Amino acid sequence: MILRTHYSGQISADMDGKEVMLAGFAHEIRDLGGIAFLVLRDREGMAQITLVKKLLGKDVFKMARSISRESVVMVRGNVKAEAKAPRGYEILPTEIQVLSAAQVPLPLDPTEKVECELDTRLDSRFMDIRRPCVLAAFEIESAVLCSLRDYFHKKGIVEVFTPKIVAAATEGGTDLFPISYFEKEAFLNQSPQLYKQMLMGAGMDRVYEIGPIFRAEEHDTRRHLNEAISIDLEVSFADDKDVMEILEEAVAGAYSYVADNCRRQLEVLNMELEVPRLPFKRITYTRALELAEEKAGARMQWGDDLDTETERFLGESIGEHYFLIDWPSSIKPYYTLPYEDKPEICRGFDLMHPRMELASGAQRVHDYSLLVERIKEKGLDPDGFEFYLRAFRYGMPPHAGWGLGLSRLVMTMLNLENIRDAVIFPRDRRRLVP
Amino acid sequence: MILRTHYSGQISADMDGKEVMLAGFAHEIRDLGGIAFLVLRDREGMAQITLVKKLLGKDVFKMARSISRESVVMVRGNVKAEAKAPRGYEILPTEIQVLSAAQVPLPLDPTEKVECELDTRLDSRFMDIRRPCVLAAFEIESAVLCSLRDYFHKKGIVEVFTPKIVAAATEGGTDLFPISYFEKEAFLNQSPQLYKQMLMGAGMDRVYEIGPIFRAEEHDTRRHLNEAISIDLEVSFADDKDVMEILEEAVAGAYSYVADNCRRQLEVLNMELEVPRLPFKRITYTRALELAEEKAGARMQWGDDLDTETERFLGESIGEHYFLIDWPSSIKPYYTLPYEDKPEICRGFDLMHPRMELASGAQRVHDYSLLVERIKEKGLDPDGFEFYLRAFRYGMPPHAGWGLGLSRLVMTMLNLENIRDAVIFPRDRRRLVP
Repeated sequence: MILRTHYSGQISADMDGKEVMLAGFAHEIRDLGGIAFLVLRDREGMAQITLVKKLLGKDVFKMARSISRESVVMVRGNVKAEAKAPRGYEILPTEIQVLSAAQVPLPLDPTEKVECELDTRLDSRFMDIRRPCVLAAFEIESAVLCSLRDYFHKKGIVEVFTPKIVAAATEGGTDLFPISYFEKEAFLNQSPQLYKQMLMGAGMDRVYEIGPIFRAEEHDTRRHLNEAISIDLEVSFADDKDVMEILEEAVAGAYSYVADNCRRQLEVLNMELEVPRLPFKRITYTRALELAEEKAGARMQWGDDLDTETERFLGESIGEHYFLIDWPSSIKPYYTLPYEDKPEICRGFDLMHPRMELASGAQRVHDYSLLVERIKEKGLDPDGFEFYLRAFRYGMPPHAGWGLGLSRLVMTMLNLENIRDAVIFPRDRRRLVP
Repeated sequence: MILRTHYSGQISADMDGKEVMLAGFAHEIRDLGGIAFLVLRDREGMAQITLVKKLLGKDVFKMARSISRESVVMVRGNVKAEAKAPRGYEILPTEIQVLSAAQVPLPLDPTEKVECELDTRLDSRFMDIRRPCVLAAFEIESAVLCSLRDYFHKKGIVEVFTPKIVAAATEGGTDLFPISYFEKEAFLNQSPQLYKQMLMGAGMDRVYEIGPIFRAEEHDTRRHLNEAISIDLEVSFADDKDVMEILEEAVAGAYSYVADNCRRQLEVLNMELEVPRLPFKRITYTRALELAEEKAGARMQWGDDLDTETERFLGESIGEHYFLIDWPSSIKPYYTLPYEDKPEICRGFDLMHPRMELASGAQRVHDYSLLVERIKEKGLDPDGFEFYLRAFRYGMPPHAGWGLGLSRLVMTMLNLENIRDAVIFPRDRRRLVP
């Protein structure tokens, strides 16, 4: 079925005289009497279809100018160079078909002249995404994925899928969504952490997974959702430093890929992308605490997790991506490796954007006895982790890895206000539809 | 942390004299008295480490030859060309470190000399994957993904993620896993079908998603699982024929990518891959029924779904991939478009491998009224689909798409017996761990 030979963006004035077929949405119709303009919008942009009564005949002209906004149309016609038209060309149609007429009124206006509430937008997401600036963010997200996968592939990192239905929690029993799994109790997985570590024991050596994670936290913020896409990496015979390098290269690489390959989308978003410089700064947790105390008068105890205010202060004063390293062992999960000579701090790290945390990772504990001990220290029962611990008893390579939030990466890259702007159909405490 | 300079497969005899570091598992130790051989296995193969008592000294030699099988070791040493060694080289070590000692006895034997039950293998999957033939299948799966994504990217198809936690069933209320989602009832999504169609209404034009789907079916077969990875595609302004072409190119492309890029893995699996010829045969449902009746004496009514026996007969007599097309509208889902001039058959298709169904797709109903009618015909209540139907009222491009099972593709490509051989941690009615 051929309803389109070109996207609007593939046509230019130098194709003058060529016959083309365009298909898309009726973005706007301006009726000037004996002449009318139909602006056809497709994924790549807009094309001006010039309707001339004398050329089209009375009936077709009448039909065409009465097309309701956002209807789906196919236009066959000839390209004509026209300096006054938006992209230097117009189409003189020979055939116009309405493939699907839009009802009136529209649930929201995709011409972006009217601002509207996030909830209204999400309720009618199918209409919201027709706005070029909304679509552009999701196209850029796809490009980010493309860049990350290319980079992983070049590094010999194998793509895997691990189960989302699991019997046990990654970090104890909180914040899980329970499922009825036949006669058993099961949960939605919070993180592929334990599975990707088992794959190191399996000799898969370097793996990544991009897939959904589920957290039943009752937060209601601009940067948390209950279902999210996590980019997870795990590498054998590597330490925290090695995977931090992979992480910063992956992130900077994604910026640079988007800068090179998404010029049109960046233009739609009216932004220039600055590629972050490598290497990212490394700041120890202890130093971060001192800075916050000296300069911002923060009152935190060594061993506290950094509060939002301190994060904001650090972000503002550093002004670019940075790593927070050498965290207290007490606030990082049991699978984080403590320094041998100073076990109160550990080889865990967070990758921070000035606005928020993007990723978190570590060199992992690979020694069986130490792992059991760490699980107990966290007040958890090693028996509940037997399926995982077994993989540490028969030869486990030292390994390190991280998890990076896809939507946070895109949200900070494009300076989006709300994480819901980086997720097509977000899931939060209140939203389960569409 | 540098524990490895080369994988075993990156070393060859012409590197004679070069110092290298290898890291991996102690696959085997053969002790011949004053000389011993340690076979080190990593993701890329095996390397022979030759331990000479006189060169290593008594203590290191004693330690090295007592390393338990499957322990994780690092070996630094010099490459020596040695025609009698398996890959034409051996390593004369100068340093050997045991990074993680394996307990004895092992839960299963990764040297593949002993066959064992699938359940035992899955219980100790971390050990099972150390067997090169098991690992090879998962490496090939990663290559298949790479090929598919490259192909989609070249076709301008955007990668998306749709939610796995949903409020409604794709095809009515059966076979769903229920979740407690805060105070609401929710389900795990059976298929991204409705979401990818809504994205056509959103003007995303061509999208794909590779992610988990969940079906609470109580089957217990070699080709069904309750959690699976589905490769989903949807394309606007396309019909069934267009997306069948995309599908056959994607599948044949994956074969040819694997044939070119996974020679080592195919060797491990001891197989040669035949790339399927394009185009795949198209056989109508009606013709398939006739063939089965004429040649195999099958007794089926027009309108019945094809039974396993008929599928097997067709597979055997055709002997290669084929499309089954023009299905009765009554046995395809409501979103499948009936032929306008013959509404008892529809534009649905299945992609068949001689052994089983791989994919299923269709041109979709894009007309709002027809869609409502079809939902009612299937005995479903359109009110339950309001979140989806809304996207059809304000301009919906004609569109078509398909869903392809990743594990079935890999299973049939590599001639694996059981779908569990193509899934790292399978989920079925009985298995929720590891």
